[in-house]
Amino acid sequence: VSQIKHFQALIEDELNSLQYNSQPAELYDPIKYILSLGGKRMRPVLVLTGCDLFGGDIHKAIKPALGIEVFHNFTLLHDDIMDKAPLRRNKQTVHEKWNVNTAILSGDTMFVQAFQLMMKVEDNVLRKTLDLFNKTAIEVCEGQQTDMVFEQRHKVSIPQYIKMIELKTAVLLAASLKTGALIGGAREEDARALYEFGKNIGIAFQLQDDILDVYGKAEKFGKQAGGDIISNKKTFLLLKAMEMANKYMSEELQGWINAPEFKPTEKVEAVTSIYNFLGVKALAEKEMNRYYSRAMDSLKSIPVGEEKKQGLIAFADSLMVREV
Amino acid sequence: VSQIKHFQALIEDELNSLQYNSQPAELYDPIKYILSLGGKRMRPVLVLTGCDLFGGDIHKAIKPALGIEVFHNFTLLHDDIMDKAPLRRNKQTVHEKWNVNTAILSGDTMFVQAFQLMMKVEDNVLRKTLDLFNKTAIEVCEGQQTDMVFEQRHKVSIPQYIKMIELKTAVLLAASLKTGALIGGAREEDARALYEFGKNIGIAFQLQDDILDVYGKAEKFGKQAGGDIISNKKTFLLLKAMEMANKYMSEELQGWINAPEFKPTEKVEAVTSIYNFLGVKALAEKEMNRYYSRAMDSLKSIPVGEEKKQGLIAFADSLMVREV
Repeated sequence: VSQIKHFQALIEDELNSLQYNSQPAELYDPIKYILSLGGKRMRPVLVLTGCDLFGGDIHKAIKPALGIEVFHNFTLLHDDIMDKAPLRRNKQTVHEKWNVNTAILSGDTMFVQAFQLMMKVEDNVLRKTLDLFNKTAIEVCEGQQTDMVFEQRHKVSIPQYIKMIELKTAVLLAASLKTGALIGGAREEDARALYEFGKNIGIAFQLQDDILDVYGKAEKFGKQAGGDIISNKKTFLLLKAMEMANKYMSEELQGWINAPEFKPTEKVEAVTSIYNFLGVKALAEKEMNRYYSRAMDSLKSIPVGEEKKQGLIAFADSLMVREV
Repeated sequence: VSQIKHFQALIEDELNSLQYNSQPAELYDPIKYILSLGGKRMRPVLVLTGCDLFGGDIHKAIKPALGIEVFHNFTLLHDDIMDKAPLRRNKQTVHEKWNVNTAILSGDTMFVQAFQLMMKVEDNVLRKTLDLFNKTAIEVCEGQQTDMVFEQRHKVSIPQYIKMIELKTAVLLAASLKTGALIGGAREEDARALYEFGKNIGIAFQLQDDILDVYGKAEKFGKQAGGDIISNKKTFLLLKAMEMANKYMSEELQGWINAPEFKPTEKVEAVTSIYNFLGVKALAEKEMNRYYSRAMDSLKSIPVGEEKKQGLIAFADSLMVREV
């Protein structure tokens, strides 16, 4: 964990010293703003960790690490427009503080800056790094579009849901690690195993998020308990419940989903009761643990010393709170 | 011109045979749609022309040429959202036919596809080509943002206006030619001269557009005559008129600009009269010819046979209608 903190501090410093053109200010101010909102800098930390795992020089990985963080923030910026989100990390979103047009265009500019940062690698890994980045960027767009499509669709299967969270969230964590591995000189098969580790941890993490939203302690996770239930978000829990419910329960669930007005606490309690009756929490945990184990298997397959892997295991454990 | 037509047909064929992922359809259908709306394919033709000028194999330039066309269409897609434009080439814009979110996200995806296509060059020119592309993409964003800022600003100087059109329009034409030149094996200084040719032709072209909007024959140019006047667009003509007008004329001009209601034909006539009185058309033509001459000087400096340059001269002449 101390290594994670060290890498976080390094990334924060480097982000703060990024240079921007000064004009037009309307384009660059929003970029500085969103990058200053903080966050765990999980993805760039993973780039450095992936590089370090194979004994690479992490200083060669810093610029691409920033590239992935800038890309991630670009996706947040555009996603916030699409979701009409008023807040991001308790601060106004860019389209609220400025306007939608500025948010679109500042986002586009960040996307180019991300490419520029990704290119700051040595020639022998340039093409590989960029190919991975492009593939990942396309997948993230596909994931976001699929998420929006699912909101409008009545029926979504569990495998479709898992695929969506893989694209929307997990592949960028995976690509962060693999980018670091490539820069660190990993063999192709080891870089691929590390990618699988990141992908499966990412899926496990998202499943945990679904569980915590209902069963986590609100004060601990900083979100309103049951927010997903209130907004009818198609989480693993809801999809599984819809799959398992008998006719009567299915109608009750649909009743809450379609209710034009309701008391939030009543809806959360009622839907949670259905979840409890069907035991979907345990099923979600089982699924989460399955992806967590797969991740650990991938990590085991990588032939580097155990002490080198401690950082990643600590990272995985910090993500997986476990006790809910 | 026959070479231009040949290159256009080649680009059209290649665009039609681009492969896309099929899912999610909501992401890829808008991309196929906007790329099918046609257009002169000016930028990819310039890539091939730039390559051919230096005796390069144009087949090595086709994929990057498509990359620039996909990038250009991405900017049109996002610009149309920002401008709330209902039509593009007389067809519904993507955000009208689908919705704003789809338009944002399909645009983002096209941006990645553009990068992927730009990367289909040989290793020895990969970094140069991408650096140029990234720099240009940033400039195009800056140009679009500056254009939006100018709409809200009372005073814009002529040099500021020229810089804006350089960024928004001219640099992409310039970069198209230079990309082709790099792939075609041009020396750095010759590639740079070709870039200057493209940039100056682009500025001349935009100035001509300003002139034609007021003085062109509407039926010939397919636009409503005086559209820029009606919408108070800050063109070279308007900015020059504002600069030159005495107090009385300035007030008349501002009166038309601020009028909440007016008969379009009356406004166009009145403002055109002011333009005529001040002679801003001749000044705009002088400025346009200055950039055109600069472009031709750059072209002259490139040490390749005159017959090789005919394609570019024909291109420039096809852009510059001259007789208005």
